[in-house]
Amino acid sequence: MVKFDFKTYMKNYDLSSYDEKIRQIEYKLNNDSDMLDWFRLKINEEELKSIIDTSNYIKNNADVFIVIGIGGSFLGAKSVIDALSPYFSKDLEIIFAGTSLSSSYLKELINYIKDKNVIINVISKSGTTLEPNIAFDVLYEELKKKYDESELQKRIIITTDETEGHLRELVNEHNYKSFIVPKNMGGRYSVLSPVGLLPISAAGIDIYKLLEGAKSVDIKNSFHYASLRNSLYNDGKIVESFTVYEEKLLYFTEWLKQLFGETEGKEGKGILPISLINTRDLHSLGQFLQEGNKIIFETVINVINSDDINLSKYPKSLNELNNIAVNKVALAHYEGETYSNIINIDSLTPYYIGYLIYFFEVAAATSAYLFDLYPFDQPGVSRYKELINEEIN
Amino acid sequence: MVKFDFKTYMKNYDLSSYDEKIRQIEYKLNNDSDMLDWFRLKINEEELKSIIDTSNYIKNNADVFIVIGIGGSFLGAKSVIDALSPYFSKDLEIIFAGTSLSSSYLKELINYIKDKNVIINVISKSGTTLEPNIAFDVLYEELKKKYDESELQKRIIITTDETEGHLRELVNEHNYKSFIVPKNMGGRYSVLSPVGLLPISAAGIDIYKLLEGAKSVDIKNSFHYASLRNSLYNDGKIVESFTVYEEKLLYFTEWLKQLFGETEGKEGKGILPISLINTRDLHSLGQFLQEGNKIIFETVINVINSDDINLSKYPKSLNELNNIAVNKVALAHYEGETYSNIINIDSLTPYYIGYLIYFFEVAAATSAYLFDLYPFDQPGVSRYKELINEEIN
Repeated sequence: MVKFDFKTYMKNYDLSSYDEKIRQIEYKLNNDSDMLDWFRLKINEEELKSIIDTSNYIKNNADVFIVIGIGGSFLGAKSVIDALSPYFSKDLEIIFAGTSLSSSYLKELINYIKDKNVIINVISKSGTTLEPNIAFDVLYEELKKKYDESELQKRIIITTDETEGHLRELVNEHNYKSFIVPKNMGGRYSVLSPVGLLPISAAGIDIYKLLEGAKSVDIKNSFHYASLRNSLYNDGKIVESFTVYEEKLLYFTEWLKQLFGETEGKEGKGILPISLINTRDLHSLGQFLQEGNKIIFETVINVINSDDINLSKYPKSLNELNNIAVNKVALAHYEGETYSNIINIDSLTPYYIGYLIYFFEVAAATSAYLFDLYPFDQPGVSRYKELINEEIN
Repeated sequence: MVKFDFKTYMKNYDLSSYDEKIRQIEYKLNNDSDMLDWFRLKINEEELKSIIDTSNYIKNNADVFIVIGIGGSFLGAKSVIDALSPYFSKDLEIIFAGTSLSSSYLKELINYIKDKNVIINVISKSGTTLEPNIAFDVLYEELKKKYDESELQKRIIITTDETEGHLRELVNEHNYKSFIVPKNMGGRYSVLSPVGLLPISAAGIDIYKLLEGAKSVDIKNSFHYASLRNSLYNDGKIVESFTVYEEKLLYFTEWLKQLFGETEGKEGKGILPISLINTRDLHSLGQFLQEGNKIIFETVINVINSDDINLSKYPKSLNELNNIAVNKVALAHYEGETYSNIINIDSLTPYYIGYLIYFFEVAAATSAYLFDLYPFDQPGVSRYKELINEEIN
């Protein structure tokens, strides 16, 4: 159902030297207790039911559902929702906020929701992150102008730490609906927890199928892929392009950039993740991959089947042409010493997206261990925050 | 009005060795006749008037305006329209097509426009590019079902070569409204020609101000910037991040990626262009820039003034915080050996976007010349097309 092609357009590396290290990593993943709840796919059935109930309420009672969060509290949900929603005409309008310090964005959003029915989900583990805090403060004030206390209780949903922080205090004080960000799980590994699942469910996506896909991954494939990309890195291929042929997957590549960039971009190490949205970017960065500096390899996510269109002037349907492009581009890039891994999924469904999420999470953690790095921190993210805080406190 | 800060967060390089080469490049730009119409900002006043008239017609007669094109026939217009349009509630819905081989995108688009008033602008210099050709074929058939010949004449606008190709034949045969893609100008340098200006004007953007901004660039700054990035490259900084703090500029960074990627990604050379949309990506690739592999430098486009919001809990307004973030992030990255050029523009207006377009176009061409590369071809883009054509012809 998921076909990995790690050979056809790839240089041949001997991966047997990784065997012992991979065995140790597998042991670590299975036995360490630190930040690994995502690996165990720990989900509480009662919590899942509460997510479904709440998402049904949102669908039936909001014109606009605003999700406030940044980093892992944004990219996971956004990537799955975009991948599995129609390009045009959506059932529920979902808007993300708190992802920047842009005042024009927030100001325009306030005007936009003036006469609309709004429900907000603010997501922050600590409750102390600057961007979502500001967005929530500002939007909360707007909602207080529109709704009374009992109405607000139906319109503010808070996803935060189980016991700590000012958002949890707000829940306790006002009896707002709330969900828990698991303690033992970092932001970029949290999409299959309430952090991601509530917004995803509100978009009408089957979260049980998503989890089913995640559970069906054979992690041997993740280990193989992680060993391969480590070999590529040692061979001078220090940039990885996550390449897709369906624009709906744009934010999935953004999620991958965070997952790998934060997991292994430490101590002067790491493969720099970039993305290509093809065929669009064949008329842009494609030139660079074909003939530029030879520092890049590609990991292609290809969706084999899609709602198809027959073309009168061509001997193939449009979707057949897209599949031909995937292979011919990989061949052309191979000729230009840009090698490709290809991951073929059958179709864009919750099952396959769940599968890809877990496949890549295991691969990212493994990759960091192969660099002798701890996968689950991001010490470099705090430095700019400290410098800003010096200025405003 | 545009403040270049190429010092504060930048390593100190002696650029005097570039003086003679820059003199030669300036002579070339001023005196070569090949593919340099963009440098002369050659615009025909009559054509500008025709663009304005046509765009007014579009605004008054379409629910949806579909622009079909890929590469330079897409990114220029898209980047300017996004930069200068509201985030929400737009006057006219502009949809781009022909940027991929996704059948689900095209199929969903056909359903979406079923009951809508549609005008199409197809843009292709040669008329032979696969993706826009297919999108135009399919959408043209849909419009033929909806409209008779005289109505189609008001709804099909073709931007193509002055005399050659099947799109020009279609214009002649059906008397469709048409514009000319200048012969002496490559796609990625064509945004300030009818290629970009018609869609931009249809979005309600003042194209005279855009051109005024372009004309007011002092190209000495472009030369300085090109020399600096060449020095950075020689110093091991082989990746450039175009970094913005306003999500409206996302596609402007995509346009920059094409401009630089295709202009200098040849013969195994070139600086790989990537982008960061901050502060969003500080919670993603930011970790890599702070502590990962030290191969990156940044060119930051900062918008100083923005419709502002006062924050009750902070001593600064939101836009002040955004400006503080720009500088503190550059400082934090500088500490991590990721150096930054900062380009400050006063506000997001057509004048400043026009300024940036021309500034970067001159810088990209200059950068290629500094690598001893010809800036205006993209030989690597054709290889995958040849391989696909072998399969379908």
